[in-house]
Amino acid sequence: MDATAAPQHVRALSEIERWAGETDVLVVGLGCAGAAATLDAVAAGAEVMVVERAGGGGGTSSMSGGVVYLGGGTALQRACGFEDSVEEMFKYLMASCGPAPDEAKIRVYCEESVAHYEWLVGLGVPFKAVFYPHYSGEPPTDDGLVYSGSEEAHPYCEIAVPAPRGHVPQTTNQAGWLLMQTLVAAATGSGAEVRVDTRCQALVMDATRTVVGAVLRCGGEETAIRARRGVILTAGGFINNKQMLRTYAPLLRQCKFRVGAEGDDGSGVRMGMAAGGAAINMSMGSVSLPIIPPKTLQKGMLVNARGQRFVNEDAYYGVLGEQALYHQDGVAYLVLDADTFVKPEVARDVAGTGETIEELEAALALPHGALVDTLAFYNRHAARGEDPLFGKAPTYTVPLRPPYGALDCRTASSLYAVFTLGGLWTNIDGEVLTPDGAAIPGLYAAGRTTACLAAPGYSSGLSLGDGTLFGRRAGRAAATRPTS
Amino acid sequence: MDATAAPQHVRALSEIERWAGETDVLVVGLGCAGAAATLDAVAAGAEVMVVERAGGGGGTSSMSGGVVYLGGGTALQRACGFEDSVEEMFKYLMASCGPAPDEAKIRVYCEESVAHYEWLVGLGVPFKAVFYPHYSGEPPTDDGLVYSGSEEAHPYCEIAVPAPRGHVPQTTNQAGWLLMQTLVAAATGSGAEVRVDTRCQALVMDATRTVVGAVLRCGGEETAIRARRGVILTAGGFINNKQMLRTYAPLLRQCKFRVGAEGDDGSGVRMGMAAGGAAINMSMGSVSLPIIPPKTLQKGMLVNARGQRFVNEDAYYGVLGEQALYHQDGVAYLVLDADTFVKPEVARDVAGTGETIEELEAALALPHGALVDTLAFYNRHAARGEDPLFGKAPTYTVPLRPPYGALDCRTASSLYAVFTLGGLWTNIDGEVLTPDGAAIPGLYAAGRTTACLAAPGYSSGLSLGDGTLFGRRAGRAAATRPTS
Repeated sequence: MDATAAPQHVRALSEIERWAGETDVLVVGLGCAGAAATLDAVAAGAEVMVVERAGGGGGTSSMSGGVVYLGGGTALQRACGFEDSVEEMFKYLMASCGPAPDEAKIRVYCEESVAHYEWLVGLGVPFKAVFYPHYSGEPPTDDGLVYSGSEEAHPYCEIAVPAPRGHVPQTTNQAGWLLMQTLVAAATGSGAEVRVDTRCQALVMDATRTVVGAVLRCGGEETAIRARRGVILTAGGFINNKQMLRTYAPLLRQCKFRVGAEGDDGSGVRMGMAAGGAAINMSMGSVSLPIIPPKTLQKGMLVNARGQRFVNEDAYYGVLGEQALYHQDGVAYLVLDADTFVKPEVARDVAGTGETIEELEAALALPHGALVDTLAFYNRHAARGEDPLFGKAPTYTVPLRPPYGALDCRTASSLYAVFTLGGLWTNIDGEVLTPDGAAIPGLYAAGRTTACLAAPGYSSGLSLGDGTLFGRRAGRAAATRPTS
Repeated sequence: MDATAAPQHVRALSEIERWAGETDVLVVGLGCAGAAATLDAVAAGAEVMVVERAGGGGGTSSMSGGVVYLGGGTALQRACGFEDSVEEMFKYLMASCGPAPDEAKIRVYCEESVAHYEWLVGLGVPFKAVFYPHYSGEPPTDDGLVYSGSEEAHPYCEIAVPAPRGHVPQTTNQAGWLLMQTLVAAATGSGAEVRVDTRCQALVMDATRTVVGAVLRCGGEETAIRARRGVILTAGGFINNKQMLRTYAPLLRQCKFRVGAEGDDGSGVRMGMAAGGAAINMSMGSVSLPIIPPKTLQKGMLVNARGQRFVNEDAYYGVLGEQALYHQDGVAYLVLDADTFVKPEVARDVAGTGETIEELEAALALPHGALVDTLAFYNRHAARGEDPLFGKAPTYTVPLRPPYGALDCRTASSLYAVFTLGGLWTNIDGEVLTPDGAAIPGLYAAGRTTACLAAPGYSSGLSLGDGTLFGRRAGRAAATRPTS
């Protein structure tokens, strides 16, 4: 690309001839984080303008399963008969959210989770007080509560008392649209000015490196809007930006099924970086390898290209995918026998079959004797319901007997549902931080424009969860910031 | 950190009251990349100023082993009786340099490698035309050529014809000081103005986002220097910046032995990012797990916390460390028997011993039966010199017989020699690129301030190699850029 063609994601205030308008808080993007930011900024007394490049709000959130990861003892958890506490939720997230969990953010997330659920209910998001036990992830029913992470799986079940924390709006199948219908309606009716078909082209910074507004484009015309208190970037991730994927997250290109609205081209991340913000965990994505439903398929044995097991098969399917893509070169097969095989609900090819394990091993072209040994070891312990390597739960740990078959779980052919988890580094108030850890005055971000709480170690519902909860906090922080 | 305390890595031209001096090209840092950039910028006819924050040049390069990764048929390779070609070198690097190798840079690196060796010789860097066969990495002798990567190991030996490409200046043990003594002397005598004890505080950018100079600090006083053609950042990596490690490369914190001068605090990377540059591969590091010398230790069997093998033990020790840290949670043991055990030259604790493999398994607290099975499988094939899982070379693939011992190769106690490989994204001319892939006018970088060619997949000598070769290219590009 020629240097002169470089997009200018930041413009100097001195370049701005006139402001076409002004507001206290400018929110960029009307997905879950943008709606939440808008609502709390308005509630805090600010004048708010929201711009959305699409024809209407919703974004990727409205294409999602609608699961919101919440806990600590929400009314829904209690109504479904589950006990949970801030401390157990905190322990689970600290253990599962990668090698460098953001303790301050996880603490806030857990402490504010119960109230955040009430806030969603107060807006009119319906949740049916029925626990759906047959699946981890989005239920096909309209039930309201599911496990959406690895809470019941080793090692997490020994670290924190498990509780289901996937809160799902009441509608069958994918519930994201319902969540977003409610949030967008609330944001639109909040008194904020909502401009659709309007793209944020660049941030405007003054000589003190404070963000003081933005350049918008609508109908081919550029206008500059002054934001007296701050700009909040909630413009999604970058799964639909080929160059950013190649540069920052090349492994994600192996996954064919990408979850993201057209707007997930990383524009928010790029504007934040251009303003001096650090982007972190940029190679990470949520990589779901749904071997379930039904859960009985967790009785299978997942092996890599060397016929070795590498994870407990009852870990959350986000963890399965992450392990397969990042640590096993994207090669995995799920070995099953006649008793454990059922047709998977997520269509998946049969990679090989065999009357004996030797035959299956040959069919999969695994190293001679490797799968034979792996199965013998597995069966020896499974006869007692034990999995000494990975601690799979006894329910799913049974010997596998001939004949055998293996489902294809390789990246190239079958990994599902990938979106980016890396993004701008923010603090608990949504302020965008520089690589030195300093806040950029006037600049906030939330949602997948920011790095997820969990990267790696994703549990479903954390994106809608951190997007809305930290979106609200960003809205409040921006609304109460002294005017620039 | 309070926002007002944020370091300002970029200053607007409008903030600069006066230039205290000017030059064509300003080079920041006098390590290998800075020296190389200086020499070629001067040779291209530019006026050059180099600033070094330490009392003298050398940087981390002078603390290194001095290995320079070069090939394609250098005079040294030929004198030692090895054939090599640009194409074989290219194939090796494309295969080994991670999931997204930078083809354009690797191509240039290979094509210019022979001439680059001649350039080093022309400057007076001595290389003894003797191949050192007993070790991969820096030889303890003054021999000039070694294997310094995984060229002879599976799968690379099947992809490209192996050739040793580690070119080592002639002195015993660590040779980095000799390389740098020569390069610094040449840079100092080149006609460039060298200022030591001088720190680059910030880049200066004009209203068109062109880098036009820098703010320096010396003796407590700040001065601004105009750089008519460009600024070249060659200020090292960030292994000595705790916060950047925590933010970008948390796994590297597990490694205790950090290779880096005091200046490796990421200041170059941070200035480049503040100017709009993308930083890539930021989580990656060179993580050496030297199980050798002597090479006979490669006959051992490296296993993880589940008693599984995970790599061919004859892969380069940079690859062993990377696999252990990034994919095995930093847990590895090297299992040996009486025949294969020799005292490792790099001190390493004995993690456990056993008259039988069952006893060793118990001593290492591995899952019951796991190591027993792994060894049985290994021995069965090793009896024929075969390693069907990882393709270790027959020379090192022999059955292991009781009694047994295991060397501790866990991150916490034993990983060696880590430095950062992530950094600014640059093109073949050293121009710093934005996340959009556009060059930032007037800004160049080289050395570990930039992302390494190989991250992951490090071969030793690539840092001194890409630092000097792309340092020179940056010097020439900056020197011939039209003045701002």
